[in-house]
Amino acid sequence: MIIAVDAAGGDFYPENPVTGAIEALREKSDLTVLLVGPEAIIRKELDRHSYDRDRIGVLDCPEVIGMEESPSSAVKSKQRSSIVMGLAAQKEGRCDAFVSSGNTGALLAASVFILGKLPHVQRPTIATTFPTLKGTRLLIDAGANLELKPEHYYQFARMGTIYCREVLGVDDPGVGLLNVGEEPEKGTDVLKEAYILLRELSNFRGNIEGRDIFPCKADVFLCDGFVGNVLLKFGESIPSAVEMLLTSTMSGMKITPDVQSEVARIFQKSLDSFNYENVGGVPFLGVNGVSMVGHGGSTPAAIRNMILNAAHCVEASVNSKIVDTLDE
Amino acid sequence: MIIAVDAAGGDFYPENPVTGAIEALREKSDLTVLLVGPEAIIRKELDRHSYDRDRIGVLDCPEVIGMEESPSSAVKSKQRSSIVMGLAAQKEGRCDAFVSSGNTGALLAASVFILGKLPHVQRPTIATTFPTLKGTRLLIDAGANLELKPEHYYQFARMGTIYCREVLGVDDPGVGLLNVGEEPEKGTDVLKEAYILLRELSNFRGNIEGRDIFPCKADVFLCDGFVGNVLLKFGESIPSAVEMLLTSTMSGMKITPDVQSEVARIFQKSLDSFNYENVGGVPFLGVNGVSMVGHGGSTPAAIRNMILNAAHCVEASVNSKIVDTLDE
Repeated sequence: MIIAVDAAGGDFYPENPVTGAIEALREKSDLTVLLVGPEAIIRKELDRHSYDRDRIGVLDCPEVIGMEESPSSAVKSKQRSSIVMGLAAQKEGRCDAFVSSGNTGALLAASVFILGKLPHVQRPTIATTFPTLKGTRLLIDAGANLELKPEHYYQFARMGTIYCREVLGVDDPGVGLLNVGEEPEKGTDVLKEAYILLRELSNFRGNIEGRDIFPCKADVFLCDGFVGNVLLKFGESIPSAVEMLLTSTMSGMKITPDVQSEVARIFQKSLDSFNYENVGGVPFLGVNGVSMVGHGGSTPAAIRNMILNAAHCVEASVNSKIVDTLDE
Repeated sequence: MIIAVDAAGGDFYPENPVTGAIEALREKSDLTVLLVGPEAIIRKELDRHSYDRDRIGVLDCPEVIGMEESPSSAVKSKQRSSIVMGLAAQKEGRCDAFVSSGNTGALLAASVFILGKLPHVQRPTIATTFPTLKGTRLLIDAGANLELKPEHYYQFARMGTIYCREVLGVDDPGVGLLNVGEEPEKGTDVLKEAYILLRELSNFRGNIEGRDIFPCKADVFLCDGFVGNVLLKFGESIPSAVEMLLTSTMSGMKITPDVQSEVARIFQKSLDSFNYENVGGVPFLGVNGVSMVGHGGSTPAAIRNMILNAAHCVEASVNSKIVDTLDE
């Protein structure tokens, strides 16, 4: 198993990708990592660590796609970037997966362009993990496709079910269609048609509302990429917002510093499930390969977990299961 | 100032509307309330209270529209319901505003049908208050219009600005267009066109993302009714979700009961701004009158605050300001 790791993506490269890769090697004995990026800076970072030289390779890619660059033009003009060369290496069979905490738009564009789509897939999508009271679940689409047709919801439901079961480890995951009410006739015309298609799935739990996400009324939350992106970013802002409210409330209540730090400790621990580090990265589903993207600010632990998740995708044959289910 | 109060709406009528109305009278000396609903049950509830008889009237409406009834057919078939008769009383000039914690869809349909639209208004909308780190702000549309045209965003921005300034008391409120990124070219075609129209407003702060809501990067958050409804319901689920996470974390950490109850108290106080009771109700903007809707489970305090907010709308001449601004 060889996982290519973008060592020129995210806000903290090459340190965090290199450190995360070395940590992943320690966790998984049959893993080899291919670090992709400008070789000189990668070698310099590697020199600061001790690691098994037989299990880390470097693919020199002198160009770097910045976090704010326009995705399609960056992918076209920077053919010697880590994103383009790393995905090309996968296409050529030189590695099994590619992970990056770089420019999401560029990764999506390059993944679709270079790896291509799986058979039967109409639209590749970004699925994102989402914290719930029962653990990590899946929100799909997270921003790849701002507007969807009914059949896209149907395909996303099937792909999401497989990822949720195989990688997130949820038994018999249920699918919920995010809507403004539970009744089948709720929502836009597109959603009403999607509902009719989704009814054919044995694990469709019907329409769900915004309030049903945290209580985990379904395991795969379906929505268009606009709604998914807004919810994802809003959700990510909850921990710091609640923490600020707690802090200002406590200072107004004259709570002793001891109790304040105890409350902060309890709160931090409570919101551990909101920490993206634990899942590390999220997949592009529907592409003919394994490609994952992590937070721009990914820590080494987040990148380690993203690498392990990508390995899991490969081992669980997520893609051939997607092809099989869409072929039914 | 006469405010009609739906005494046959919500989950706890007539108790909560009657009690809330009496509380509102105590707060505002120039207020008179018209209780609207089945007279017998209202009189029976009134008998349990002491109040100034000159300041409470009753309008007998024998029919009740249930919380789950289909809005348009309920409004058509129940012409002697509190919602229809209360709004008709306002149309006839017998009161200045109507507030209800009843069926939102029926209230919207009846408000538009009976009161009509204000001059220049293309689409009436539901604006909802939303908690932020700087206090209560406005999210618009909250579910009245699932799909919008660019010019609707523009009108909602202007109406929302007035409500936010006049009723929520925000100085110089800024308008943000909820989108998947900050750049003007982000989002769907409708949003790109809306952006161009909104740029003409001096208080337009550009595109905002989901993460910008809590930090209050704008004061009026513009989105279509689908996104608004999902966000509103998701947002309402945050306090109980975080509370459950805190409770289960504390029991796992073997925190003493004393500290647990102290933490619970701090947490409750911190999330006071999430409590809908404080604002009580939200307005239908763009209708030719003042009509507000509250939570189905509204407490007496919530209904009291909704009545006071409606009075505030009347006194601040929100509607004539809306007409003036749309006429520019």
